[in-house]
Amino acid sequence: MSRDVRVRFGERLREVRTGHGISQERLAALAELHRTFVSLIERGERNVTLQTVEKLALALDVEMAELMPVQEQ
Amino acid sequence: MSRDVRVRFGERLREVRTGHGISQERLAALAELHRTFVSLIERGERNVTLQTVEKLALALDVEMAELMPVQEQ
Repeated sequence: MSRDVRVRFGERLREVRTGHGISQERLAALAELHRTFVSLIERGERNVTLQTVEKLALALDVEMAELMPVQEQ
Repeated sequence: MSRDVRVRFGERLREVRTGHGISQERLAALAELHRTFVSLIERGERNVTLQTVEKLALALDVEMAELMPVQEQ
């Protein structure tokens, strides 16, 4: 049974963001999202929609698929 | 500029679902979602959340990434 998808997505987002060497503030600005919202997402406290995933992917210049967590066994 | 992410997700979901040879009704039952909701998603009329993407992916036995649309130029 996988952990909550919100938590796994938040971890994945943080991984990709830090891999790109940018701060939460910078990501928020690029994605036109509130910095607090990005922080809540990374902490697994928001069940984000496709439109938000797309904004984050565009801001990070990755495909949406790259932000998806993999299923845990 | 990509078309609306909801429309592209709906198309991708339909593609994967029909590739698996299952009906919208069957997918809805497997994912424990309402048949009408699945229909609206495939028509691009719902901005689904991560939790719904996960339910659909588990029902189709694919990774969530496989349901993500690719960015259009």
